[in-house]
Amino acid sequence: MGKIYLVGSGPGDPGLITVKGIEILRKSDVVIYDKLIPKEILSYCKGDAELIYYGKGIGDASLQDKINELLVRKAKEKEIVTRLKGGDPYVFGRGEEECVYAAEHGIECEVIPGITSAIAVPAYAGIPVTSRWFSSGFTVITGTRAEGSPINLDYVPKKGTLIILMGVERIDEIRKELLKVRSGDVPVAIIENGTTKSQRVFISTLDRLHITAKDNDIRPPAIILVGEVIELRNKLWKIS
Amino acid sequence: MGKIYLVGSGPGDPGLITVKGIEILRKSDVVIYDKLIPKEILSYCKGDAELIYYGKGIGDASLQDKINELLVRKAKEKEIVTRLKGGDPYVFGRGEEECVYAAEHGIECEVIPGITSAIAVPAYAGIPVTSRWFSSGFTVITGTRAEGSPINLDYVPKKGTLIILMGVERIDEIRKELLKVRSGDVPVAIIENGTTKSQRVFISTLDRLHITAKDNDIRPPAIILVGEVIELRNKLWKIS
Repeated sequence: MGKIYLVGSGPGDPGLITVKGIEILRKSDVVIYDKLIPKEILSYCKGDAELIYYGKGIGDASLQDKINELLVRKAKEKEIVTRLKGGDPYVFGRGEEECVYAAEHGIECEVIPGITSAIAVPAYAGIPVTSRWFSSGFTVITGTRAEGSPINLDYVPKKGTLIILMGVERIDEIRKELLKVRSGDVPVAIIENGTTKSQRVFISTLDRLHITAKDNDIRPPAIILVGEVIELRNKLWKIS
Repeated sequence: MGKIYLVGSGPGDPGLITVKGIEILRKSDVVIYDKLIPKEILSYCKGDAELIYYGKGIGDASLQDKINELLVRKAKEKEIVTRLKGGDPYVFGRGEEECVYAAEHGIECEVIPGITSAIAVPAYAGIPVTSRWFSSGFTVITGTRAEGSPINLDYVPKKGTLIILMGVERIDEIRKELLKVRSGDVPVAIIENGTTKSQRVFISTLDRLHITAKDNDIRPPAIILVGEVIELRNKLWKIS
Protein backbone atom coordinates (compact mmCIF):
# COMPACT_ATOMS: atom_id res chain seq x y z
CA MET A 1 0.00 0.00 0.00
CA GLY A 2 1.39 3.39 -1.00
CA LYS A 3 1.11 6.76 0.61
CA ILE A 4 -0.64 9.91 -0.63
CA TYR A 5 0.87 13.37 -0.32
CA LEU A 6 -1.14 16.52 -0.87
CA VAL A 7 1.40 19.14 -1.90
CA GLY A 8 0.68 22.85 -2.17
CA SER A 9 2.54 24.37 -5.12
CA GLY A 10 1.98 27.98 -4.08
CA PRO A 11 0.20 30.83 -5.84
CA GLY A 12 1.79 30.83 -9.29
CA ASP A 13 5.42 31.99 -9.05
CA PRO A 14 7.29 28.66 -9.36
CA GLY A 15 9.86 29.95 -6.82
CA LEU A 16 7.23 29.84 -4.11
CA ILE A 17 7.07 26.05 -3.76
CA THR A 18 8.67 24.71 -0.57
CA VAL A 19 11.80 22.56 -0.29
CA LYS A 20 9.69 19.78 1.19
CA GLY A 21 7.23 20.01 -1.70
CA ILE A 22 10.07 19.52 -4.18
CA GLU A 23 11.49 16.57 -2.22
CA ILE A 24 8.12 14.82 -2.41
CA LEU A 25 7.71 15.55 -6.13
CA ARG A 26 11.19 14.13 -6.85
CA LYS A 27 10.26 10.76 -5.37
CA SER A 28 6.62 10.53 -6.50
CA ASP A 29 5.58 7.66 -8.76
CA VAL A 30 2.32 9.34 -9.72
CA VAL A 31 1.49 13.06 -9.71
CA ILE A 32 -2.10 14.16 -10.21
CA TYR A 33 -1.96 17.88 -10.82
CA ASP A 34 -4.41 20.73 -10.86
CA LYS A 35 -5.08 23.57 -13.22
CA LEU A 36 -2.63 26.49 -12.98
CA ILE A 37 0.39 24.46 -11.83
CA PRO A 38 3.49 26.09 -13.40
CA LYS A 39 5.49 23.89 -15.81
CA GLU A 40 8.67 24.63 -13.87
CA ILE A 41 7.19 22.88 -10.85
CA LEU A 42 6.20 19.78 -12.83
CA SER A 43 9.81 19.59 -14.05
CA TYR A 44 10.88 18.48 -10.53
CA CYS A 45 9.06 15.17 -11.11
CA LYS A 46 11.24 12.17 -11.87
CA GLY A 47 11.50 11.04 -15.49
CA ASP A 48 9.39 7.91 -15.18
CA ALA A 49 6.69 9.46 -13.00
CA GLU A 50 3.13 9.19 -14.27
CA LEU A 51 1.75 12.73 -14.60
CA ILE A 52 -2.03 13.05 -14.71
CA TYR A 53 -3.76 16.35 -15.35
CA TYR A 54 -7.00 16.74 -13.45
CA GLY A 55 -8.05 20.38 -13.61
CA LYS A 56 -11.31 20.92 -11.87
CA GLY A 57 -13.81 23.68 -12.49
CA ILE A 58 -15.25 25.59 -9.56
CA GLY A 59 -17.83 23.55 -7.66
CA ASP A 60 -17.48 20.47 -9.84
CA ALA A 61 -18.40 17.92 -7.17
CA SER A 62 -18.62 14.79 -9.33
CA LEU A 63 -15.09 15.39 -10.61
CA GLN A 64 -13.88 15.62 -7.01
CA ASP A 65 -15.28 12.13 -6.39
CA LYS A 66 -13.33 10.89 -9.40
CA ILE A 67 -10.12 12.48 -8.11
CA ASN A 68 -10.63 10.86 -4.68
CA GLU A 69 -11.11 7.48 -6.32
CA LEU A 70 -8.13 7.93 -8.63
CA LEU A 71 -5.84 8.85 -5.71
CA VAL A 72 -6.83 5.76 -3.76
CA ARG A 73 -6.60 3.48 -6.79
CA LYS A 74 -3.11 4.75 -7.65
CA ALA A 75 -1.98 4.46 -4.01
CA LYS A 76 -2.96 0.79 -4.10
CA GLU A 77 -0.69 0.31 -7.15
CA LYS A 78 2.28 2.56 -6.43
CA GLU A 79 4.48 3.68 -3.53
CA ILE A 80 4.15 7.46 -3.58
CA VAL A 81 1.18 9.24 -5.07
CA THR A 82 1.11 13.03 -5.00
CA ARG A 83 -1.82 15.33 -5.47
CA LEU A 84 -0.30 18.66 -6.54
CA LYS A 85 -2.54 21.65 -5.92
CA GLY A 86 -2.34 25.38 -6.44
CA GLY A 87 -1.90 27.44 -3.25
CA ASP A 88 -2.35 25.50 -0.01
CA PRO A 89 -4.23 22.16 0.09
CA TYR A 90 -6.25 23.23 3.14
CA VAL A 91 -7.30 26.69 1.93
CA PHE A 92 -10.37 25.94 -0.17
CA GLY A 93 -8.35 23.16 -1.79
CA ARG A 94 -10.62 20.28 -0.81
CA GLY A 95 -7.54 18.67 0.67
CA GLU A 96 -9.53 17.59 3.70
CA GLU A 97 -11.96 15.66 1.50
CA GLU A 98 -9.12 13.80 -0.20
CA CYS A 99 -7.45 13.07 3.14
CA VAL A 100 -10.63 11.78 4.75
CA TYR A 101 -11.42 9.62 1.71
CA ALA A 102 -7.90 8.17 1.78
CA ALA A 103 -8.09 7.46 5.52
CA GLU A 104 -11.43 5.72 5.05
CA HIS A 105 -9.69 3.42 2.58
CA GLY A 106 -6.80 2.75 4.96
CA ILE A 107 -4.28 4.85 3.07
CA GLU A 108 -1.93 7.25 4.80
CA CYS A 109 -2.22 10.84 3.61
CA GLU A 110 0.16 13.68 4.50
CA VAL A 111 -0.28 17.36 3.71
CA ILE A 112 2.65 19.58 2.69
CA PRO A 113 1.46 23.18 3.07
CA GLY A 114 1.90 25.65 0.22
CA ILE A 115 2.05 29.43 0.10
CA THR A 116 -1.56 30.57 -0.15
CA SER A 117 -2.52 33.11 -2.79
CA ALA A 118 -4.63 34.83 -0.12
CA ILE A 119 -1.46 36.31 1.42
CA ALA A 120 1.20 36.11 -1.31
CA VAL A 121 -0.84 37.62 -4.16
CA PRO A 122 -1.47 40.82 -2.16
CA ALA A 123 2.23 40.85 -1.12
CA TYR A 124 3.36 40.74 -4.76
CA ALA A 125 0.95 43.59 -5.47
CA GLY A 126 2.52 45.64 -2.65
CA ILE A 127 -0.26 45.06 -0.12
CA PRO A 128 0.46 43.62 3.35
CA VAL A 129 -2.60 41.77 4.71
CA THR A 130 -1.90 42.99 8.25
CA SER A 131 -0.39 46.23 9.46
CA ARG A 132 0.06 47.78 12.89
CA TRP A 133 -1.26 50.99 11.34
CA PHE A 134 -4.29 49.69 9.46
CA SER A 135 -5.41 46.19 10.33
CA SER A 136 -4.75 43.78 13.17
CA GLY A 137 -6.31 40.84 11.41
CA PHE A 138 -7.45 39.36 8.12
CA THR A 139 -10.21 37.09 6.91
CA VAL A 140 -10.19 34.78 3.90
CA ILE A 141 -13.45 33.62 2.34
CA THR A 142 -14.54 32.00 -0.90
CA GLY A 143 -16.75 33.82 -3.40
CA THR A 144 -18.25 30.69 -4.95
CA ARG A 145 -20.85 29.27 -2.61
CA ALA A 146 -23.14 26.90 -4.46
CA GLU A 147 -26.43 28.08 -2.95
CA GLY A 148 -27.79 31.59 -2.47
CA SER A 149 -25.37 34.49 -2.17
CA PRO A 150 -21.78 33.80 -3.33
CA ILE A 151 -20.51 34.94 0.09
CA ASN A 152 -21.82 34.42 3.62
CA LEU A 153 -21.75 37.62 5.68
CA ASP A 154 -21.59 35.61 8.91
CA TYR A 155 -17.96 34.98 7.96
CA VAL A 156 -17.17 38.68 7.44
CA PRO A 157 -16.08 40.67 10.52
CA LYS A 158 -16.80 44.38 10.97
CA LYS A 159 -13.14 45.28 10.62
CA GLY A 160 -9.92 43.96 9.16
CA THR A 161 -8.59 43.03 5.76
CA LEU A 162 -10.94 40.82 3.77
CA ILE A 163 -9.66 38.56 1.01
CA ILE A 164 -12.10 36.88 -1.34
CA LEU A 165 -10.80 33.98 -3.40
CA MET A 166 -12.52 32.79 -6.59
CA GLY A 167 -14.93 35.71 -6.53
CA VAL A 168 -14.60 37.53 -9.86
CA GLU A 169 -17.28 35.57 -11.66
CA ARG A 170 -19.96 36.81 -9.26
CA ILE A 171 -18.50 40.21 -8.45
CA ASP A 172 -21.80 42.14 -8.73
CA GLU A 173 -23.49 40.00 -6.08
CA ILE A 174 -20.40 40.05 -3.84
CA ARG A 175 -20.27 43.85 -3.99
CA LYS A 176 -23.95 44.14 -3.06
CA GLU A 177 -23.55 41.82 -0.08
CA LEU A 178 -20.38 43.52 1.19
CA LEU A 179 -22.02 46.96 1.01
CA LYS A 180 -24.34 45.75 3.80
CA VAL A 181 -21.39 45.51 6.21
CA ARG A 182 -18.58 47.66 4.82
CA SER A 183 -18.48 51.26 3.63
CA GLY A 184 -18.69 52.05 -0.10
CA ASP A 185 -15.52 54.14 -0.04
CA VAL A 186 -13.29 51.44 1.46
CA PRO A 187 -10.34 50.69 -0.86
CA VAL A 188 -10.51 47.51 -2.91
CA ALA A 189 -7.87 45.75 -4.98
CA ILE A 190 -8.52 43.23 -7.72
CA ILE A 191 -5.47 41.15 -8.61
CA GLU A 192 -5.55 38.88 -11.66
CA ASN A 193 -2.90 36.17 -12.26
CA GLY A 194 -1.15 37.22 -9.06
CA THR A 195 2.59 36.44 -8.59
CA THR A 196 2.92 35.45 -12.26
CA LYS A 197 4.42 37.45 -15.14
CA SER A 198 0.93 38.34 -16.34
CA GLN A 199 -0.16 39.78 -12.98
CA ARG A 200 -2.53 42.76 -13.25
CA VAL A 201 -3.50 44.93 -10.27
CA PHE A 202 -6.43 47.36 -10.13
CA ILE A 203 -7.24 49.63 -7.22
CA SER A 204 -10.81 50.79 -6.76
CA THR A 205 -13.43 51.22 -4.04
CA LEU A 206 -16.17 48.87 -2.92
CA ASP A 207 -18.72 51.15 -4.59
CA ARG A 208 -17.00 50.89 -7.96
CA LEU A 209 -15.76 47.29 -7.67
CA HIS A 210 -18.02 45.88 -10.39
CA ILE A 211 -17.21 48.72 -12.81
CA THR A 212 -13.46 48.29 -12.35
CA ALA A 213 -13.77 44.56 -12.96
CA LYS A 214 -15.87 45.06 -16.09
CA ASP A 215 -13.80 47.91 -17.54
CA ASN A 216 -10.66 45.84 -17.27
CA ASP A 217 -12.18 42.51 -18.27
CA ILE A 218 -10.88 40.74 -15.16
CA ARG A 219 -10.93 36.96 -15.43
CA PRO A 220 -10.08 34.09 -13.09
CA PRO A 221 -7.76 33.41 -11.41
CA ALA A 222 -8.16 36.62 -9.45
CA ILE A 223 -8.55 37.69 -5.86
CA ILE A 224 -10.44 40.60 -4.38
CA LEU A 225 -8.98 42.38 -1.35
CA VAL A 226 -10.96 44.86 0.74
CA GLY A 227 -9.35 47.11 3.35
CA GLU A 228 -7.32 50.11 4.39
CA VAL A 229 -4.03 48.21 4.08
CA ILE A 230 -4.20 49.05 0.37
CA GLU A 231 -3.15 52.59 1.37
CA LEU A 232 0.30 51.20 2.18
CA ARG A 233 0.87 50.35 -1.46
CA ASN A 234 1.92 53.89 -2.25
CA LYS A 235 4.47 53.90 0.56
CA LEU A 236 6.32 50.81 -0.59
CA TRP A 237 9.06 50.60 -3.16
CA LYS A 238 8.47 50.32 -6.91
CA ILE A 239 5.00 48.96 -7.40
CA SER A 240 4.25 47.24 -10.69
CA MET B 1 23.12 51.21 -2.69
CA GLY B 2 22.08 47.67 -1.84
CA LYS B 3 18.69 46.03 -1.79
CA ILE B 4 16.73 44.66 1.16
CA TYR B 5 14.82 41.39 1.02
CA LEU B 6 12.31 40.39 3.65
CA VAL B 7 12.22 36.61 3.55
CA GLY B 8 9.67 34.46 5.34
CA SER B 9 11.28 31.29 6.68
CA GLY B 10 8.01 29.51 7.40
CA PRO B 11 6.53 28.21 10.66
CA GLY B 12 9.38 26.10 12.07
CA ASP B 13 9.87 22.98 9.95
CA PRO B 14 13.00 23.91 7.93
CA GLY B 15 11.53 22.10 4.91
CA LEU B 16 8.83 24.73 4.64
CA ILE B 17 11.05 27.55 3.34
CA THR B 18 10.53 28.38 -0.35
CA VAL B 19 12.96 27.87 -3.21
CA LYS B 20 13.06 31.61 -3.75
CA GLY B 21 13.80 32.22 -0.07
CA ILE B 22 16.82 29.91 -0.28
CA GLU B 23 18.07 31.59 -3.48
CA ILE B 24 18.04 34.96 -1.71
CA LEU B 25 19.76 33.58 1.40
CA ARG B 26 22.52 32.05 -0.77
CA LYS B 27 23.46 35.42 -2.23
CA SER B 28 22.91 37.63 0.83
CA ASP B 29 25.86 39.60 2.21
CA VAL B 30 24.08 40.32 5.49
CA VAL B 31 21.30 38.31 7.15
CA ILE B 32 19.47 39.79 10.13
CA TYR B 33 17.47 36.96 11.60
CA ASP B 34 14.64 36.61 14.07
CA LYS B 35 14.03 34.39 17.03
CA LEU B 36 12.92 30.84 16.16
CA ILE B 37 14.69 30.58 12.80
CA PRO B 38 15.80 26.94 12.43
CA LYS B 39 19.59 26.40 12.19
CA GLU B 40 19.09 24.37 9.00
CA ILE B 41 17.75 27.48 7.29
CA LEU B 42 20.69 29.64 8.38
CA SER B 43 22.99 27.02 6.87
CA TYR B 44 21.89 28.13 3.37
CA CYS B 45 23.73 31.44 3.92
CA LYS B 46 27.06 31.80 2.14
CA GLY B 47 30.21 31.31 4.20
CA ASP B 48 31.29 34.93 4.42
CA ALA B 49 27.82 36.35 5.05
CA GLU B 50 27.42 38.48 8.15
CA LEU B 51 24.74 36.87 10.34
CA ILE B 52 23.14 39.12 12.92
CA TYR B 53 20.67 37.83 15.48
CA TYR B 54 17.95 40.28 16.34
CA GLY B 55 15.23 38.42 18.22
CA LYS B 56 12.48 40.72 19.24
CA GLY B 57 10.09 40.26 22.15
CA ILE B 58 6.38 40.84 21.60
CA GLY B 59 5.50 44.52 21.32
CA ASP B 60 9.06 45.74 21.66
CA ALA B 61 8.70 48.91 19.57
CA SER B 62 12.07 50.53 20.29
CA LEU B 63 13.86 47.39 19.12
CA GLN B 64 11.87 47.55 15.88
CA ASP B 65 13.26 51.05 15.28
CA LYS B 66 16.75 49.68 15.76
CA ILE B 67 16.12 46.87 13.27
CA ASN B 68 14.81 49.36 10.70
CA GLU B 69 17.91 51.51 11.13
CA LEU B 70 20.24 48.53 10.98
CA LEU B 71 18.65 47.27 7.75
CA VAL B 72 19.07 50.63 6.05
CA ARG B 73 22.62 51.12 7.35
CA LYS B 74 23.68 47.69 6.11
CA ALA B 75 21.97 48.23 2.74
CA LYS B 76 24.10 51.36 2.30
CA GLU B 77 27.24 49.27 2.86
CA LYS B 78 26.45 45.98 1.14
CA GLU B 79 24.70 44.64 -1.97
CA ILE B 80 22.12 42.26 -0.58
CA VAL B 81 20.73 42.54 2.92
CA THR B 82 18.14 40.03 4.07
CA ARG B 83 15.77 40.23 6.98
CA LEU B 84 14.84 36.64 7.77
CA LYS B 85 11.60 36.27 9.67
CA GLY B 86 9.56 33.42 11.03
CA GLY B 87 6.32 32.71 9.16
CA ASP B 88 5.35 35.31 6.55
CA PRO B 89 6.76 38.88 6.68
CA TYR B 90 3.32 40.41 6.15
CA VAL B 91 1.38 38.37 8.72
CA PHE B 92 2.04 40.28 11.95
CA GLY B 93 5.69 40.34 10.96
CA ARG B 94 6.10 44.11 10.85
CA GLY B 95 7.42 43.62 7.33
CA GLU B 96 5.42 46.60 6.13
CA GLU B 97 7.15 48.86 8.66
CA GLU B 98 10.57 47.74 7.47
CA CYS B 99 9.56 48.15 3.81
CA VAL B 100 8.14 51.63 4.32
CA TYR B 101 11.21 52.71 6.31
CA ALA B 102 13.51 51.39 3.56
CA ALA B 103 11.50 53.14 0.84
CA GLU B 104 11.65 56.41 2.78
CA HIS B 105 15.44 56.05 2.69
CA GLY B 106 15.48 55.34 -1.03
CA ILE B 107 16.28 51.66 -0.67
CA GLU B 108 14.50 48.99 -2.66
CA CYS B 109 12.78 46.37 -0.54
CA GLU B 110 11.26 43.11 -1.82
CA VAL B 111 9.17 40.65 0.13
CA ILE B 112 9.49 36.88 -0.35
CA PRO B 113 6.40 35.32 1.24
CA GLY B 114 6.76 32.47 3.71
CA ILE B 115 4.39 29.75 4.86
CA THR B 116 2.38 31.28 7.69
CA SER B 117 2.02 29.38 10.94
CA ALA B 118 -1.65 30.41 10.93
CA ILE B 119 -2.38 27.76 8.28
CA ALA B 120 0.55 25.29 8.43
CA VAL B 121 0.57 24.76 12.20
CA PRO B 122 -3.07 23.59 12.18
CA ALA B 123 -2.31 21.44 9.09
CA TYR B 124 0.55 19.65 10.89
CA ALA B 125 -1.83 19.08 13.80
CA GLY B 126 -4.37 17.49 11.44
CA ILE B 127 -6.70 20.49 11.26
CA PRO B 128 -7.70 22.07 7.92
CA VAL B 129 -8.54 25.78 8.36
CA THR B 130 -11.33 25.56 5.79
CA SER B 131 -13.68 22.72 4.96
CA ARG B 132 -16.70 22.39 2.73
CA TRP B 133 -18.36 20.59 5.65
CA PHE B 134 -17.47 22.91 8.52
CA SER B 135 -16.15 26.33 7.54
CA SER B 136 -16.11 28.41 4.38
CA GLY B 137 -13.64 30.91 5.72
CA PHE B 138 -11.02 31.67 8.33
CA THR B 139 -9.81 34.69 10.26
CA VAL B 140 -6.36 35.34 11.66
CA ILE B 141 -5.86 37.81 14.50
CA THR B 142 -3.13 38.65 16.99
CA GLY B 143 -3.59 38.10 20.72
CA THR B 144 -1.11 40.76 21.82
CA ARG B 145 -2.69 44.16 21.41
CA ALA B 146 -0.81 46.74 23.47
CA GLU B 147 -3.84 48.55 24.88
CA GLY B 148 -7.01 47.19 26.47
CA SER B 149 -8.18 43.70 25.59
CA PRO B 150 -5.59 41.46 23.88
CA ILE B 151 -8.03 40.89 21.02
CA ASN B 152 -10.46 43.19 19.22
CA LEU B 153 -13.87 41.57 18.69
CA ASP B 154 -14.54 43.83 15.69
CA TYR B 155 -12.11 41.57 13.84
CA VAL B 156 -13.92 38.36 14.83
CA PRO B 157 -16.79 37.22 12.59
CA LYS B 158 -19.80 35.28 13.87
CA LYS B 159 -18.76 32.13 12.04
CA GLY B 160 -15.69 30.49 10.58
CA THR B 161 -12.38 29.19 11.84
CA LEU B 162 -10.57 31.66 14.09
CA ILE B 163 -6.80 31.51 14.50
CA ILE B 164 -5.12 33.57 17.22
CA LEU B 165 -1.38 34.05 16.94
CA MET B 166 0.77 35.04 19.92
CA GLY B 167 -2.13 34.64 22.33
CA VAL B 168 -1.06 32.15 25.01
CA GLU B 169 0.34 34.71 27.41
CA ARG B 170 -3.06 36.37 27.83
CA ILE B 171 -5.25 33.33 27.34
CA ASP B 172 -7.65 34.10 30.24
CA GLU B 173 -8.58 37.49 28.80
CA ILE B 174 -8.85 36.09 25.27
CA ARG B 175 -11.22 33.37 26.45
CA LYS B 176 -13.44 35.89 28.25
CA GLU B 177 -13.67 38.12 25.18
CA LEU B 178 -14.37 35.25 22.79
CA LEU B 179 -17.17 33.93 25.00
CA LYS B 180 -19.05 37.14 24.14
CA VAL B 181 -19.29 36.09 20.48
CA ARG B 182 -18.73 32.32 20.33
CA SER B 183 -20.32 29.43 22.20
CA GLY B 184 -18.53 27.91 25.20
CA ASP B 185 -18.71 24.40 23.77
CA VAL B 186 -17.02 25.22 20.46
CA PRO B 187 -13.88 23.06 19.97
CA VAL B 188 -10.54 24.75 20.55
CA ALA B 189 -7.02 23.56 19.79
CA ILE B 190 -3.84 24.89 21.36
CA ILE B 191 -0.71 24.02 19.40
CA GLU B 192 2.72 24.69 20.90
CA ASN B 193 5.93 24.63 18.79
CA GLY B 194 3.85 23.73 15.74
CA THR B 195 5.51 21.94 12.78
CA THR B 196 8.67 21.26 14.85
CA LYS B 197 9.77 18.03 16.52
CA SER B 198 8.60 19.36 19.87
CA GLN B 199 5.06 20.13 18.65
CA ARG B 200 2.35 19.57 21.27
CA VAL B 201 -1.38 19.62 20.45
CA PHE B 202 -4.20 19.94 22.97
CA ILE B 203 -7.89 19.82 22.14
CA SER B 204 -10.36 21.52 24.45
CA THR B 205 -13.41 23.78 24.33
CA LEU B 206 -13.63 27.56 24.58
CA ASP B 207 -15.06 27.18 28.10
CA ARG B 208 -12.06 25.18 29.28
CA LEU B 209 -9.37 26.89 27.18
CA HIS B 210 -7.58 28.53 30.12
CA ILE B 211 -7.61 25.31 32.17
CA THR B 212 -6.15 23.27 29.31
CA ALA B 213 -3.40 25.85 28.80
CA LYS B 214 -2.54 25.94 32.50
CA ASP B 215 -2.69 22.17 33.07
CA ASN B 216 -0.28 21.59 30.23
CA ASP B 217 1.97 24.58 30.90
CA ILE B 218 1.66 25.89 27.33
CA ARG B 219 4.31 28.44 26.40
CA PRO B 220 5.03 30.56 23.33
CA PRO B 221 5.30 30.00 20.46
CA ALA B 222 1.78 28.66 20.33
CA ILE B 223 -1.38 29.28 18.37
CA ILE B 224 -5.00 28.99 19.43
CA LEU B 225 -7.55 27.72 16.90
CA VAL B 226 -11.30 27.97 17.46
CA GLY B 227 -13.83 26.17 15.27
CA GLU B 228 -15.69 23.10 14.16
CA VAL B 229 -12.95 22.11 11.68
CA ILE B 230 -11.20 20.53 14.66
CA GLU B 231 -13.78 17.70 14.38
CA LEU B 232 -12.02 16.62 11.16
CA ARG B 233 -8.91 15.73 13.09
CA ASN B 234 -10.35 12.35 14.06
CA LYS B 235 -11.17 11.51 10.46
CA LEU B 236 -7.67 12.05 9.13
CA TRP B 237 -4.82 9.58 9.14
CA LYS B 238 -2.46 9.03 12.07
CA ILE B 239 -2.56 12.14 14.18
CA SER B 240 0.43 12.76 16.44
